[in-house]
Amino acid sequence: MKLVTFFMDEEEKLGVLNKDETKVIEIDGLVEGEYLDMIDLIEYGSDEDFKAIKKASRTKGTAQNSYDLDDVILLAPIPWPEHDIICLGVNYADHLEEAKKDMKGKFATPTHAVYFSKRASSIIGPGEKIQGRFDIDPELDYEVELAVIIGKMGSDIPPEQAEAYIFGYSVFNDISSRQVQKAHQQWFRGKSFDTYAAMGPCILTKDELPFPVHVDVKSYVNGELRQSSNTKMLIHDIPHIIAELSTGITLEPGDIIVTGTPAGVGMGFSPPRYLKAGDTVTVEIPEIGKLINEVK
Amino acid sequence: MKLVTFFMDEEEKLGVLNKDETKVIEIDGLVEGEYLDMIDLIEYGSDEDFKAIKKASRTKGTAQNSYDLDDVILLAPIPWPEHDIICLGVNYADHLEEAKKDMKGKFATPTHAVYFSKRASSIIGPGEKIQGRFDIDPELDYEVELAVIIGKMGSDIPPEQAEAYIFGYSVFNDISSRQVQKAHQQWFRGKSFDTYAAMGPCILTKDELPFPVHVDVKSYVNGELRQSSNTKMLIHDIPHIIAELSTGITLEPGDIIVTGTPAGVGMGFSPPRYLKAGDTVTVEIPEIGKLINEVK
Repeated sequence: MKLVTFFMDEEEKLGVLNKDETKVIEIDGLVEGEYLDMIDLIEYGSDEDFKAIKKASRTKGTAQNSYDLDDVILLAPIPWPEHDIICLGVNYADHLEEAKKDMKGKFATPTHAVYFSKRASSIIGPGEKIQGRFDIDPELDYEVELAVIIGKMGSDIPPEQAEAYIFGYSVFNDISSRQVQKAHQQWFRGKSFDTYAAMGPCILTKDELPFPVHVDVKSYVNGELRQSSNTKMLIHDIPHIIAELSTGITLEPGDIIVTGTPAGVGMGFSPPRYLKAGDTVTVEIPEIGKLINEVK
Repeated sequence: MKLVTFFMDEEEKLGVLNKDETKVIEIDGLVEGEYLDMIDLIEYGSDEDFKAIKKASRTKGTAQNSYDLDDVILLAPIPWPEHDIICLGVNYADHLEEAKKDMKGKFATPTHAVYFSKRASSIIGPGEKIQGRFDIDPELDYEVELAVIIGKMGSDIPPEQAEAYIFGYSVFNDISSRQVQKAHQQWFRGKSFDTYAAMGPCILTKDELPFPVHVDVKSYVNGELRQSSNTKMLIHDIPHIIAELSTGITLEPGDIIVTGTPAGVGMGFSPPRYLKAGDTVTVEIPEIGKLINEVK
């Protein structure tokens, strides 16, 4: 099922898409429990409530509390994460090569997974604007990534049990100001500007995808294909990432781990092709959906 | 005044230390407003309520709802931060030199402030144990730092207005597993293990310190002085940090920015002197207090 957070009647609500993805069915009317937001549903949702949501997702959605998808504003499925987003750097071999080229030999091939974090006061959703900070950095860049949403608390998780700790998946755009990212050595600031985290359009629950997850990841700028790969190309795969991160760090329901980006970012072109005001960026994982944001 | 979060009657409560710092006066009985936690007080505390708290802090604390300091458990003043802690790397010249030595020339002198983040599911307070992950990394290290607590939301803050956005200060121990920190290139994982963020014993409100803030920062291991410097030695000072971070990132009430550590960490000795189980680490800023944690 495809879970969404949407805005209607001046409220943030939880919903699930119907069978043909034309309607959003409000979750509040479907379940016994009362869930404040997506993290609350992930953490406390009962099996029975999830069954009821799944059942509704297979209908046409003609119940009272369903809305035409066109009539609601979709937000990021988790607009207010409880922790910074944990990101993988250079986790596709082809992107590693383009990053090394851009850095003119100053970037060594990592011996281990590269983890950094991205602050998001709020994550932007479908249609929200990316506010490029061109005044301090002209090199605004996009990165399509598969986001893994953690489903339950865990530490020291063995790789073979990783799937049990996943709730679902989403599409993520890890927006970056490249000059700032590089100037400060550690990437935090250049990755953490307001609006530089976009996620959506939904969370696809893990039961909908075979594990290991092999899905296409693509990005387009103004309709032109820029990135195209598949998560089977990840250098460090999802079981490795969850096992390694949870060794030391207790993962929590609603945590967002984004798994890295393949070649084709603006930085990777010669000359580079950075984003400019008015550009439209689309990141896509066909099984989950498309997330489209315009640059302001 | 010195604000604390403490545990009493199976509840987290807010308090203020009395004049001679022998008692904790519960804030709940002093003020009109109802404050859920320290972040709530920082964000929504009225001038009148702060006046009442300050007035009480100048008394002996004989009111009904005051407790002997020895009878309560002090927690980190902000046990559950809303965002990851923003940290400055190599922000004292003498620590930069010891870090370069440790890295045998592989660490270049930064041209800009180095910002990274530290996840904390919860920040540990006075007396709580640091759970060293010696099973995966024997190089457990301490770092005393001045923590700056943000008081109000702001972006693009000019350096000369930085003080207006500060709520107060605390003492911070930025605990690190050095092998993990270095292995992953970006420092996030080696800095973010459970219990690797310690803060306390209180928040000293900004009105108690002249600005710019020039305070001694010291650390001791088993009573032996290891680090001793003063925040006037910061390479990037607090106005610079707040101005630069808020350019792009909206700072929020309760955000914690830790300003870097001087020379004398375990990594800086030859041979290195890392922490081991049973060690007691004390970090101190005399105007604020001492924070003592044992390594488990």
